[in-house]
Amino acid sequence: MLKVLKFGGTSVGTLDRIQNVAEIIKNIKDDGHDVIAVVSAMSGETNKLIEYATHFSKSAMPHEMDMLLSSGERVTSALLSIALNEQGYPTTSMSGRQAGIVTDNAHTKARIESIDTTNMKQAISEGKTIIVAGFQGISQDNGRVSTLGRGGSDLTAVAIAGAIQADVCEIYTDVDGIYTTDPRIEPKAKKLDKISYDEMLELASLGAKVLQNRSVEMAKKLNVNLVSRSSFTPEVEGTLITKEENIMEKPLVSGIALDKNQVRVGMYGVTDRPGIASAIFTALADANINVDMIVQTVGVDGKTDLDFTIPTTDWEICKEVMQKFEEDAENIDYNEAICKVSIVGVGMKSHTGVASKAFTALANENINIRIISTSEIKISMIVEEKYAELAVRALHEAYNLDQ
Amino acid sequence: MLKVLKFGGTSVGTLDRIQNVAEIIKNIKDDGHDVIAVVSAMSGETNKLIEYATHFSKSAMPHEMDMLLSSGERVTSALLSIALNEQGYPTTSMSGRQAGIVTDNAHTKARIESIDTTNMKQAISEGKTIIVAGFQGISQDNGRVSTLGRGGSDLTAVAIAGAIQADVCEIYTDVDGIYTTDPRIEPKAKKLDKISYDEMLELASLGAKVLQNRSVEMAKKLNVNLVSRSSFTPEVEGTLITKEENIMEKPLVSGIALDKNQVRVGMYGVTDRPGIASAIFTALADANINVDMIVQTVGVDGKTDLDFTIPTTDWEICKEVMQKFEEDAENIDYNEAICKVSIVGVGMKSHTGVASKAFTALANENINIRIISTSEIKISMIVEEKYAELAVRALHEAYNLDQ
Repeated sequence: MLKVLKFGGTSVGTLDRIQNVAEIIKNIKDDGHDVIAVVSAMSGETNKLIEYATHFSKSAMPHEMDMLLSSGERVTSALLSIALNEQGYPTTSMSGRQAGIVTDNAHTKARIESIDTTNMKQAISEGKTIIVAGFQGISQDNGRVSTLGRGGSDLTAVAIAGAIQADVCEIYTDVDGIYTTDPRIEPKAKKLDKISYDEMLELASLGAKVLQNRSVEMAKKLNVNLVSRSSFTPEVEGTLITKEENIMEKPLVSGIALDKNQVRVGMYGVTDRPGIASAIFTALADANINVDMIVQTVGVDGKTDLDFTIPTTDWEICKEVMQKFEEDAENIDYNEAICKVSIVGVGMKSHTGVASKAFTALANENINIRIISTSEIKISMIVEEKYAELAVRALHEAYNLDQ
Repeated sequence: MLKVLKFGGTSVGTLDRIQNVAEIIKNIKDDGHDVIAVVSAMSGETNKLIEYATHFSKSAMPHEMDMLLSSGERVTSALLSIALNEQGYPTTSMSGRQAGIVTDNAHTKARIESIDTTNMKQAISEGKTIIVAGFQGISQDNGRVSTLGRGGSDLTAVAIAGAIQADVCEIYTDVDGIYTTDPRIEPKAKKLDKISYDEMLELASLGAKVLQNRSVEMAKKLNVNLVSRSSFTPEVEGTLITKEENIMEKPLVSGIALDKNQVRVGMYGVTDRPGIASAIFTALADANINVDMIVQTVGVDGKTDLDFTIPTTDWEICKEVMQKFEEDAENIDYNEAICKVSIVGVGMKSHTGVASKAFTALANENINIRIISTSEIKISMIVEEKYAELAVRALHEAYNLDQ
């Protein structure tokens, strides 16, 4: 098999941990597989460099930030290559340029446009393990080094796996897979063996520290089998994220996600003139505010109540935008003390009664649901934040996720 | 004027010092000059990376060492570019690749083969200050990053100055120029305004921490006007190293150099058979031992005494080589307690009596001269190491270098 592995900053955070990664790769090589390993900068390095740049400028030129920030991954790739080679495994490090990764010109948040796999295929055919400096490519316009933004090394790994048609792309972090819910909230949470791309995307809050949505989306698009596993317990099989067709037993519910970083915006007594809702949400979209759940309640007096949620980080900008609509409503208020609990499972598509079980479970705990929104594979509910953990545990139990 | 500036690791060792370098460049720009600045890694960075590599291997692959070690200069170039740009001076950083520097394939000690100045000329024509990551280029064979070895950033600066026909190449360190002798030995030492390439090469021990011979040789070859000056006292004019024809007043003696890292090898009662000296020095050369001064004394009994000096670092290897010749001599001994004092000056070419003044000065201090060797612009003398400083001061005074 051809395996693309990705090791994050924590997994290569010290020289001993780099040695540990070398051991993991050796074992995989000894099992007869070909390996392309994508590495991040040693943990702390990138932040240190950002601090350095900020010392000089709050708005450094993006292409210079890329020149700066791309250096950490280069260091790790050379060190891991040296470590493996020393132990008798032929290796070669590759920068993004050498790995053939071409991006658009959006420095610091570039998108991969194409990957020329010639160099990598040549090295593999020579029996070499390739260590790729993650997070970077070269800009197609000016040929300068570009970086891919947050989660860029994961993207590098997934894109390479797709381009070179690897059998699997294993993302190593300090967590050994995707759980039915956050084990810090529900100790009975179980690690999932398999999960579909769509479920993973909906469970983002569970996987946020492990897999970014951008990578999962790319894996889905390129049909890459993604595995989330830990470099600290490599003997533990991780969670396979794959297309739904590859999952034989489709669970009713795969997991419970919790998102506390939401603010509920309430707009009460809105004069129900045509286009008012459209005007509000267009203005919010123009301000790049990610509106999540929306509920509109039409009253008998021709007035409307509008409820919606936004990420806490967008709160300040949202308030500015909403000033324009103050005269359209009797009152606008913001409630930060809420959270979003979501039930995710591909099995919902073909089963009924999933939602009512959730409502019953929460009602049994006297938890009021303020907003509900449903999609094909997800039911999200806004509840008071103080009930967050209780709600997660109640739902986890209701769907027997600890079995 | 087009000026190439080079800032070493100490000059860019902290964020404040990088800011200081930005100020120096701003002043030069404000005077109406174009600037290409070549930077080293922040002091300590390269050694840290070497330690990292050594943790994994005592003999890491050279091309991986280059991938590793080239990162420090890239970081500095981006930071300095950001700092200058923030203050309204348009800049662009360039890696060795972008600066068009192509080297041979000798990774970690590559030689510059050619410089394509297209990118740099374009940036200059756009009014940009260029910040080049020193010490690196790309290998002409495999296109991977290569590094130039010790003093590589100086070489980068000199080679760029030569290729782009800059008016001057200023090497900034923490020393403000070349002195008539080491000021720690003779506080009356004076900074030289100008000195010829050849004198500088002979005064290597005075300039070792400031300019490496490799850079001076390249400056001579490419006819680059080199200036040694300090980034900590940029208001002080440094020392211009240029071709002899550019120096109007040719001093009799320019400086006194001292080298304590020499071992004197004495081979006594050598049977004077044909080719014996040749055999010895060929064997030493084959072992890459840099034999410096040689004196042969032929006795009346058909026996010969051979005296020569070698660098202290070659002592152990020299002893091994000399074992082969033990039977050719009555006795071989080694004396580490010696030093070499040299008088350097282009004026010697056309003046007589320079040497006798030196011998008189040392005789007056009761210092015995063990070996003497002379060249067109240098007189070197081996004396007992305990007299080193006294000899330097006596010679400095004899030639009125404090005037």
